[in-house]
Amino acid sequence: VARPIIALVTDFGLRDHYVGSMKGAILGICPEAAVVDITHEVPPHDIAAGSAALAAAYRDFPAGTVFVAVVDPGVGSARRAIAAEAGGYLFVGPDNGVFSGVFDRTPPRRIVELARGDYASADISRTFEGRDRFAPAAAWLATGVPLARLGPSLSLDRVERVPAPAPVLGETNIGGEVVHVDRFGNLITNVERRVFDALSASRPMIVEIGERTVPIVATYADVPEGAVCGLFGSTNHLEIAANRASAAALLGLGAGARVVISPARG
Amino acid sequence: VARPIIALVTDFGLRDHYVGSMKGAILGICPEAAVVDITHEVPPHDIAAGSAALAAAYRDFPAGTVFVAVVDPGVGSARRAIAAEAGGYLFVGPDNGVFSGVFDRTPPRRIVELARGDYASADISRTFEGRDRFAPAAAWLATGVPLARLGPSLSLDRVERVPAPAPVLGETNIGGEVVHVDRFGNLITNVERRVFDALSASRPMIVEIGERTVPIVATYADVPEGAVCGLFGSTNHLEIAANRASAAALLGLGAGARVVISPARG
Amino acid sequence: VARPIIALVTDFGLRDHYVGSMKGAILGICPEAAVVDITHEVPPHDIAAGSAALAAAYRDFPAGTVFVAVVDPGVGSARRAIAAEAGGYLFVGPDNGVFSGVFDRTPPRRIVELARGDYASADISRTFEGRDRFAPAAAWLATGVPLARLGPSLSLDRVERVPAPAPVLGETNIGGEVVHVDRFGNLITNVERRVFDALSASRPMIVEIGERTVPIVATYADVPEGAVCGLFGSTNHLEIAANRASAAALLGLGAGARVVISPARG
Repeated sequence: VARPIIALVTDFGLRDHYVGSMKGAILGICPEAAVVDITHEVPPHDIAAGSAALAAAYRDFPAGTVFVAVVDPGVGSARRAIAAEAGGYLFVGPDNGVFSGVFDRTPPRRIVELARGDYASADISRTFEGRDRFAPAAAWLATGVPLARLGPSLSLDRVERVPAPAPVLGETNIGGEVVHVDRFGNLITNVERRVFDALSASRPMIVEIGERTVPIVATYADVPEGAVCGLFGSTNHLEIAANRASAAALLGLGAGARVVISPARG
Repeated sequence: VARPIIALVTDFGLRDHYVGSMKGAILGICPEAAVVDITHEVPPHDIAAGSAALAAAYRDFPAGTVFVAVVDPGVGSARRAIAAEAGGYLFVGPDNGVFSGVFDRTPPRRIVELARGDYASADISRTFEGRDRFAPAAAWLATGVPLARLGPSLSLDRVERVPAPAPVLGETNIGGEVVHVDRFGNLITNVERRVFDALSASRPMIVEIGERTVPIVATYADVPEGAVCGLFGSTNHLEIAANRASAAALLGLGAGARVVISPARG
Repeated sequence: VARPIIALVTDFGLRDHYVGSMKGAILGICPEAAVVDITHEVPPHDIAAGSAALAAAYRDFPAGTVFVAVVDPGVGSARRAIAAEAGGYLFVGPDNGVFSGVFDRTPPRRIVELARGDYASADISRTFEGRDRFAPAAAWLATGVPLARLGPSLSLDRVERVPAPAPVLGETNIGGEVVHVDRFGNLITNVERRVFDALSASRPMIVEIGERTVPIVATYADVPEGAVCGLFGSTNHLEIAANRASAAALLGLGAGARVVISPARG
């Protein structure tokens, strides 16, 4: 059996002990697990951002990885706790939409409600289900406990979703928006490569953002140093970038900025 | 034998290579260890904050975990280096009070002075005992070297303590103070649940903070969105929190703010 | 066989999912690896800073450790990707000078160009070779694939180097500069202990920085609390430090500040 992997997305940050406590709970149940941080810097309570971070990363992990997503403003309330299997991966977290990005791309084969006390802490804090409910459930799954054992099945239509802003497909262009700014100042949009490919049909394309019109290229080095361009990044989304510089700083733009993609005139 | 776990609390931050170097030293001695970060964002030289972070997390780890705490303004000086066993856990670090929070809750069964050169680096830097003394000692303990082998015993009364501010117990109320603000803006106080329970005797209770009087509830969702409340968090300390918002920002308060807990007038 | 160790230096930060995705790619190939973060907070695109962080840490890891350094402003361009063996360690990353600090200290025994597609992802993103090329190459090396299998040899003189600023050795003094400020406000210079030892010949020495002249001592506690001093830190470089305080804050200085070391007048 391969070594189990448990990967974490939370809004806990790294200043407090919360992530460490979750890992302690995991290793108490499944000591051989490799526990990997995807990010803990999701803005507090920002379910959509947590969903996007998980969706950007999960397919880079091997099959069987258990993902725990804890962005959970409703912790301790009556909101459900769930686990799911999708695309050969397992997912554990609150039922608040934090798995929307995954489920949009990879329809889940089975979702269960975490209803069985024997796969949680004996004493569940009303403010830290990450430690007392989600970490133990993920660790038990990593040891090989079948998903169905954790609770009754739930149909997908009963599960919360956070709608992601969809691009607007015109006849001759695509309207999109910036949904994330990364550490390098790349402006990541909601326009996926397959939507783009259908419009471009291999023609040269441009993207308008702010007052600028920039070419769509294959990599940063295709434009001069400091120049802005569009390209498809590592998750196959269009991003507005700059060669060896921050597009966000150069353009003075961030999340919510609009882009329009169309064929270059020519 | 279960896989050994070594958990770290330091004030090294994550920008420099210091934490990586400690882990390199650990894995050179005990390559099978799971090395877990509790936090490295303790404010530089803040022994009390390091003590509090460790005290908040250690009981969430399985028995046998080795904790290394390096908040060590006296590194390289004559201050002692120690290791201890308490509650089935092992602790390694400087003798400067960084284990006060643990020892207050879990009296140590044995404390030793790290005096044996064969469980440290051959060459001990006067500025980085985390790498050269504490990491090796922890790694050797994780491989199964008995605590007593690391050096001569030390009695608890000879070990440095950093006093934690104690709540003031009145006949009809409890006076406490905020000792930590977490990433969510929750104001964590020094009032523990058992002290509170003795006063409340199951009556509804309120807490005064700043100019506000707020109810004490079970979880964030028990008050309207944006409202402030008191509740007992995941370490069983009273915290002043807000539902889906930052109590610290709403109240404009932080560490050192006073709270008074008393029965609701009924 | 000891458990393989893969240690990472990048400028990816911890807010985005990039580091997590690299770890997913590594664990898919070499699930038993211990993956260690040296730092991911290298300033974006700062090759010299990445080189310095790796050079400061690599000798603290056991022989056989595979280091991956991804500070890669030329990602996706024609710049080479390389792997190397030096001092019993393995190194993987872009050929842009990020290994200069290592190669200056430890001449590589063999360098290869990563030219073999079977040790990379099937589909290599033009913006994320960390995930698709460097992480897989490192993971294959960690499983025991010989370096020579990854591609054709490259001579050291064909590899990019980033020159580190060298100290200026006078007859009676050494001129150096601050190259890094750590979390504690220690000002780390480019003056190594062996250069210093040749000049000092065991005489008491002083260092001038800004308007101050301070003694060179063995550890922080050798000067009064709050006083500034020079000392040789854990990588054997002269640093300007303060006892229980930040030298950077006290002096108002940072990277680029000049120091002059000379014998104390007696």
